[in-house]
Amino acid sequence: MKINIDGVKLPKSKASQQTFDALVNSAEQLFGRNGYSKTTVGDITKAANIATGTFYIYFESKYAIYEYILEKYRLGLKSALAKAVKDCTTRAEKEYAGLKTFIMGALENPLCYHLVWESLYVNQDLFKKYYQSFAEDYARALKRDREELNTTEYRTIAFMLMGINNFVGLQSLFENDTESDVERRANIAIDVLRNGLFNK
Amino acid sequence: MKINIDGVKLPKSKASQQTFDALVNSAEQLFGRNGYSKTTVGDITKAANIATGTFYIYFESKYAIYEYILEKYRLGLKSALAKAVKDCTTRAEKEYAGLKTFIMGALENPLCYHLVWESLYVNQDLFKKYYQSFAEDYARALKRDREELNTTEYRTIAFMLMGINNFVGLQSLFENDTESDVERRANIAIDVLRNGLFNK
Repeated sequence: MKINIDGVKLPKSKASQQTFDALVNSAEQLFGRNGYSKTTVGDITKAANIATGTFYIYFESKYAIYEYILEKYRLGLKSALAKAVKDCTTRAEKEYAGLKTFIMGALENPLCYHLVWESLYVNQDLFKKYYQSFAEDYARALKRDREELNTTEYRTIAFMLMGINNFVGLQSLFENDTESDVERRANIAIDVLRNGLFNK
Repeated sequence: MKINIDGVKLPKSKASQQTFDALVNSAEQLFGRNGYSKTTVGDITKAANIATGTFYIYFESKYAIYEYILEKYRLGLKSALAKAVKDCTTRAEKEYAGLKTFIMGALENPLCYHLVWESLYVNQDLFKKYYQSFAEDYARALKRDREELNTTEYRTIAFMLMGINNFVGLQSLFENDTESDVERRANIAIDVLRNGLFNK
């Protein structure tokens, strides 16, 4: 997965890749736990046990590493979802698999909500870009399965489904769901999408 | 609307009510625009043109006024939604009216997302409490209309619907929707809840 961000210089050797990854991991932990505004470049290099000067070989600023992490997170989620749905034969099965994967990922790494939603404060355009890119990919996938859908409003449906993923995921976090809880909850949501919510 | 929060002393006279409201309005603007962590009590009193000492007559701390604002926001939204649905005759109509009201409110006051989602950083329990209280009220309302629903999983459905409200609302913000755009978008979402998303 190649991530190109202005202000980020990707490492070229195996050794520099290790340094780069250590910085990214520390920043991810610190941003998620303490927030972007409370974290300094010094905190990141200290936690990674790497000299501060080295940080600036790869990242122009704290903002650059944050933007990198957000993009890494978006592409990582995209690829996990693609993998989860690859053997599904219907759109409904894909939505179930996607929802389960999204929630299991959130339970493994609850700090992801912090990381993404803090972009609202760091730079609103970043937040917008994050969700709009995600929605475009989602809408494209829905359009490919258009023969199975009752609507052609792919973008609005993408936002609707993203909302379901995010909020049912929050509920799973709040209630410390196990994997079987997540499956039960995902089935409830997909059944509503399958049969409709209202009987009149 | 009476809001009781530990660390907040409600005003007793009309004059003190004005002072109290001025502090709350300033804090709401500043938290929404610059974030909680970057706003000080001094910033709030300065913007409201009120002596700093006066702040502490009503609020124990910056945290107390933030908690007050969050609760005011939740109850305000709850009452706007109750008002919006009061003449609706079916649950589907209520969901349409609620969704439209939620999104129109977000367009009028886009900072509401900032205010609520920042609670994740201010105090995670506050964030959890906010959404869980909201979900409980929502689930109770769904249960009252249980004869119109295809499911009895009211709490999970509440989170699902909250997700749809929040994320379709984000899309409306991103795309600078007019009222008729919002109506069109709300209809798309409610049609999916009415007819199901998948045709197989």
